[in-house]
Amino acid sequence: MRAQELIQRKRDGGALHASDIRALVAGYTSGSVPDYQMAAFCMAVFFRGMNGEETVALTETMLLSGDVLDLSDIPGPKVDKHSTGGVGDKVSLTLAPIAAACGVKVPMISGRGLGHTGGTLDKLESIPGFRIGLSVEEFRKVLSATGCALIGQTDRLAPADRKLYALRDVTATVESIPLIAASIMSKKLAEGIDGLVLDVKVGSGAFMKTRAAAEALAGTLCGIGRGFGKRVSALLTAMDEPLGRAVGNALEVKEALELLRGGGPEDLREVNDVLTAEMLVLAGVASTRQDGLRRVRDAVASGRAMEKFVEIAVAQGADVRALEDPARLPSAPSVAEVAAPRGGYVEAIDAQAIGLAAMALGAGRARVEDRVDPAVGILVQKKVGDAVDRGEALCLLHHREGGEPVGRVAQRVLAAYRIGEERVTPGPLVIGEIS
Amino acid sequence: MRAQELIQRKRDGGALHASDIRALVAGYTSGSVPDYQMAAFCMAVFFRGMNGEETVALTETMLLSGDVLDLSDIPGPKVDKHSTGGVGDKVSLTLAPIAAACGVKVPMISGRGLGHTGGTLDKLESIPGFRIGLSVEEFRKVLSATGCALIGQTDRLAPADRKLYALRDVTATVESIPLIAASIMSKKLAEGIDGLVLDVKVGSGAFMKTRAAAEALAGTLCGIGRGFGKRVSALLTAMDEPLGRAVGNALEVKEALELLRGGGPEDLREVNDVLTAEMLVLAGVASTRQDGLRRVRDAVASGRAMEKFVEIAVAQGADVRALEDPARLPSAPSVAEVAAPRGGYVEAIDAQAIGLAAMALGAGRARVEDRVDPAVGILVQKKVGDAVDRGEALCLLHHREGGEPVGRVAQRVLAAYRIGEERVTPGPLVIGEIS
Repeated sequence: MRAQELIQRKRDGGALHASDIRALVAGYTSGSVPDYQMAAFCMAVFFRGMNGEETVALTETMLLSGDVLDLSDIPGPKVDKHSTGGVGDKVSLTLAPIAAACGVKVPMISGRGLGHTGGTLDKLESIPGFRIGLSVEEFRKVLSATGCALIGQTDRLAPADRKLYALRDVTATVESIPLIAASIMSKKLAEGIDGLVLDVKVGSGAFMKTRAAAEALAGTLCGIGRGFGKRVSALLTAMDEPLGRAVGNALEVKEALELLRGGGPEDLREVNDVLTAEMLVLAGVASTRQDGLRRVRDAVASGRAMEKFVEIAVAQGADVRALEDPARLPSAPSVAEVAAPRGGYVEAIDAQAIGLAAMALGAGRARVEDRVDPAVGILVQKKVGDAVDRGEALCLLHHREGGEPVGRVAQRVLAAYRIGEERVTPGPLVIGEIS
Repeated sequence: MRAQELIQRKRDGGALHASDIRALVAGYTSGSVPDYQMAAFCMAVFFRGMNGEETVALTETMLLSGDVLDLSDIPGPKVDKHSTGGVGDKVSLTLAPIAAACGVKVPMISGRGLGHTGGTLDKLESIPGFRIGLSVEEFRKVLSATGCALIGQTDRLAPADRKLYALRDVTATVESIPLIAASIMSKKLAEGIDGLVLDVKVGSGAFMKTRAAAEALAGTLCGIGRGFGKRVSALLTAMDEPLGRAVGNALEVKEALELLRGGGPEDLREVNDVLTAEMLVLAGVASTRQDGLRRVRDAVASGRAMEKFVEIAVAQGADVRALEDPARLPSAPSVAEVAAPRGGYVEAIDAQAIGLAAMALGAGRARVEDRVDPAVGILVQKKVGDAVDRGEALCLLHHREGGEPVGRVAQRVLAAYRIGEERVTPGPLVIGEIS
């Protein structure tokens, strides 16, 4: 194999054999194919795309570059969920224990937040004592005992993907659907799952800004899943305003606990319920989506979901008092209001701007190496469609000295709001399904 | 400047400011922009192209990365010629002394051959004693004294181009017209010329296989020239069969000497004369192309062109006896005939295949680090349109033990010929002009 010939074939619109993709990507991982050739290849893929066979071969090569969990000795269907990332998206924290309470095994390996999007690991770590760095043996033990384990990626999980992503990040080759899809699936397939529900976010706060792009990504993700013989389905959900009201790690955990206790914001509940129900269907626990929704609501109403969350969290070292009394979770020393400059109705909230404002308060990362402050964040008081009087709070900023001055962050939040004369009705949350 | 933002802008079809191009390419040259970012950028340019301003900025940055000759103290118009490369193209060897004999100053910096195309330096070095590695001071002295100097590129000439070309070679990003054009012009503009005639070859033996591609390259080259305030014109010439009859270094020198003495193949003479005449026009020495052609023919017929070549060659250390008696040039120990397997008319000769066959005999390089044998090569006996009897020689292979077995090379040469029933008329040699 000569790498430049493979680059040229892709550049000229040809398809590569699976064995060529394997040679190129394995060569890149081992160092025999240099960065500059892989960068040129990724840019050629950006323009020319990849067919299904190529995308599956890329995913497989990255998957097999590291450890792949074999959970076949743990009985029951293993199903996970992956979200392409949004603002205020704390669904993993509620969905995982609910699905486990309904009999699904949920071996969930999550990532950290970056830029305007949050990460499940950062949220979990705001719970005192919660350990996301379990060994594989501990992971198996917690999964086996509780039906769910929530951990972070290790260095041994798809190292080829990590190396390739770092290269794509600095060569403007991130935004390629086959490369994005192979990256996601190589990490998820390493979990040893039987099925996967994908939450592909669409809108101003999502990576995919248009429905067409989201559908293309969802189709590619499902195609890879089929290529590996897995049950995969994708829901397209709206990410035009923050999901729920809380944006920031401990604030989101509190909102997740509210949901598990039967409360919480309606939009968060709708997205949580439909994604969890789909997991139950893929796992064979529910016969239909409706049956799944019934089981999800029953698990919450009965208190089994909340019990399950406590069980999982305690198994991972969490201080149970912080879950029973959320006032024990980290909290910011100061709260500032962002007041509406005029009365009217909220027409739109730029979710990405809210995510970046929360990041500026310290809740997120501008760079991978930044630390997050678990306590700070934003509580959205007025959502799209809400009436608001002049001077009423649009958002509350939970803040601490040392970050960007709160007045500046308030200006950003204000700029994210559009307030008009007419009441608007928020669009549907679940806007499409692909499987 | 963040390199990935510039890559992204180009990737998305935007234009870069001249200052961005300068920062990117100067950063690459100095090492602050890594290989992988430049590789991704080149691939984005492959797909998106560059506008005139970008191409001029790229050329300028590469030009100014090294030394630029200032020949303003040498009186007279300085004009050079550049060919995009072909098979049997020894025009530089005849054109330069003829133009100098007509009063043009020709500061010619040439390259070596690679793959199926030959290089002027390799041809010159087959002349015993000829030194192409003059210092800048020697170059000036020879140019000043004789009106012409013929040397090779130094490390100090457009080093950014050399570094970038090496990267493009291994990342499948060579075939981009703005990148090709900037590479050519950065080296030619470093010669301190006032004008440049471009010979853009088109056809099976050329880098540009189609007229459209050649016209695009010629247009871009001329645009860069204008951007630097130079007089530039481009001729599109056919490269479907070898130019002249000789392919191989000393064999080509012998053919060039024949031309300078008033003989030589007609097609070589036609291309030589029109390119040289155009140089005279750009230099202001001739008033029209016709006037230029008259002067060129007169310089040859009067013997002044041959005298000038001897004068230049001797100034550069050549053994004058080898020029006066070409039997003293290197010659191969053995000559093999490639016989026609049937009678008929030569319909086509694949120039690239002939070039590669000569390379296999040792006349050219498969890789930059290979050495060439000055003596070996191919003498084409039958050209397109010629009648041939069965068993008659199509080509003579001047060979030596140690290369590819001569029988195998003969098979390649045979495969390059198409012999048919009908006499065909060769197409025109000069097929277009752009200025």
